[in-house]
Amino acid sequence: MTKIFILGGGGMLGQKLANQLVKNASETAAELDISLFDVAFPPETLAGVTKITGNISHPAEIQKIAAQRPDIIYHLAAIVSGEAEADFDKGWQVNMFSMWALLEALRIENRESGGSYIPKIIFTSSIAVFGGPFPNKIDDEFLSAPQTSYGAQKAACELILSDFSRKGFVDGISLRLPTICVRPGKPNLAASGFFSGIIREPLNGQTASLPVPDTVRHWHASPRAGANFLIHAAKLDTNFLNNRRALNLPGVSCTIAEQIEALRKVAGQSAVDLIVPRADRAIVKIVDGWPQNFAPERALALGFKAEANFEEIIATYLEDDLPTAHSLKNL
Amino acid sequence: MTKIFILGGGGMLGQKLANQLVKNASETAAELDISLFDVAFPPETLAGVTKITGNISHPAEIQKIAAQRPDIIYHLAAIVSGEAEADFDKGWQVNMFSMWALLEALRIENRESGGSYIPKIIFTSSIAVFGGPFPNKIDDEFLSAPQTSYGAQKAACELILSDFSRKGFVDGISLRLPTICVRPGKPNLAASGFFSGIIREPLNGQTASLPVPDTVRHWHASPRAGANFLIHAAKLDTNFLNNRRALNLPGVSCTIAEQIEALRKVAGQSAVDLIVPRADRAIVKIVDGWPQNFAPERALALGFKAEANFEEIIATYLEDDLPTAHSLKNL
Repeated sequence: MTKIFILGGGGMLGQKLANQLVKNASETAAELDISLFDVAFPPETLAGVTKITGNISHPAEIQKIAAQRPDIIYHLAAIVSGEAEADFDKGWQVNMFSMWALLEALRIENRESGGSYIPKIIFTSSIAVFGGPFPNKIDDEFLSAPQTSYGAQKAACELILSDFSRKGFVDGISLRLPTICVRPGKPNLAASGFFSGIIREPLNGQTASLPVPDTVRHWHASPRAGANFLIHAAKLDTNFLNNRRALNLPGVSCTIAEQIEALRKVAGQSAVDLIVPRADRAIVKIVDGWPQNFAPERALALGFKAEANFEEIIATYLEDDLPTAHSLKNL
Repeated sequence: MTKIFILGGGGMLGQKLANQLVKNASETAAELDISLFDVAFPPETLAGVTKITGNISHPAEIQKIAAQRPDIIYHLAAIVSGEAEADFDKGWQVNMFSMWALLEALRIENRESGGSYIPKIIFTSSIAVFGGPFPNKIDDEFLSAPQTSYGAQKAACELILSDFSRKGFVDGISLRLPTICVRPGKPNLAASGFFSGIIREPLNGQTASLPVPDTVRHWHASPRAGANFLIHAAKLDTNFLNNRRALNLPGVSCTIAEQIEALRKVAGQSAVDLIVPRADRAIVKIVDGWPQNFAPERALALGFKAEANFEEIIATYLEDDLPTAHSLKNL
């Protein structure tokens, strides 16, 4: 029986991951004991998993998790970038010091087990660890020079996780996720939200604002690809990482014009007509500092896979999150 | 009156820095109020500076320093690499969490001053933030993937200092110092100690062990260059750093054979004869993971200067630390 914890299991990606793990397990008859840990959960219940409500910034709750000695911990819990930028204290405490507390609690379990307990830690880092100016494509040896507190916290966690792993206390890997698109559900307040919004809202018959020029290029992967990255990482033999335990992941690099063209192919001009250009200089400025393209050779060689183009990303959204979309014009 | 604190002021580089600051001030009639803070100090007294004995891992002592609102803080205090590797807890607590505590204490002063108090922080990072495999020359955009706890702690401090600076709480810069060579005084237990030992001991008529092949290439700067890096950094307008506040510094890349050849030119074959090859596989393995060469273009453009070759490094040692050496054969 493999014991799995998903920290941040109430979030969009945590839920996708849990669903996928349950589905995979039922197909392979694997026995999984899956616990989701988060401050809150969506109302839907997911069969076969345990929900634990708690806060990773409380040391006692971290210690309780460690004491259960999970085989695999997916650590997705975080204060998002906008809030981490607005609340400096909270961002560092939750995003970095909670990672430290978690790893320290696991190190104690490792010691008490005589070194035999070495949990796998899959940590969701972010392309926010990078800051401009950027090369045409960011390669696997490009420096991490974050320009947000969120990015700095993720980069610091990578270093800490890597050192705990090098010493053999845990077996960790940091995944620098592309922007996850198309996010299902309601718009959120992330500055990156419009990348999903301009696809999701029109597919649901709603208008969507486009706050930046359509020449903006960015790096995307679907929620399904995101969940599969995490699952694939847990199966990796980390010896192949040669002690470089932070990975740039595959994704789709495209401009907003290319996103819109993909939408047109999938759902027609009437969907595209629902996108309303409405310049927002604050968002333009933020997005200007974001990576646009990668050459993630290590991750590709290690078997990580994303979509091949933005049309596939839209198709994934329709399959996974909008089954009613079969009424759409071009489907 | 400029108020300066040197944390780690009792160490070799801290002492060199204090001496140089006092010398510069007397030449320019600048008024400096210099305090050295360390767990211990060498017996020699240095005129014009205050010594404070204390431990940067004690929050109360950090707060006392911050409460004095120094204009410039040189933060050189650290557990050295060997000890940080042997004592995981102590290394992270002293090398990273003390940095956090220092910056938090300064952030409180910044807030209480209504944002007007923004101290300059000059932090001695290290080329240990890099881990192999390396390119032929490490450029300014090469990733930080440390392979020691010491390197990971320094890299994490860089990220934290950079984020506090970006937010305007302090004005920091991290200097990735080359290996400082020739270190004066007694041999220390650092794995890098032999780089100095094979020059210093022969110049003092003593034998020195060489634990690695003479083909090993490494990156050096003299203690005087080290002190001048720190002084130069304090004068920089950090706006020129474009929010990339960790700098690779200039140095001399040379093989041990080239070091020895420089020694021969300066002090003759009799000095070279005092070097005794004595392979140490543990040290060979450690040194194998160290950077060999850099292309530090940003630092050069910002006016940082090191020696041009290893002969100059030896000449600096003779001038600064071995004034009696004028009796040497070839001088």
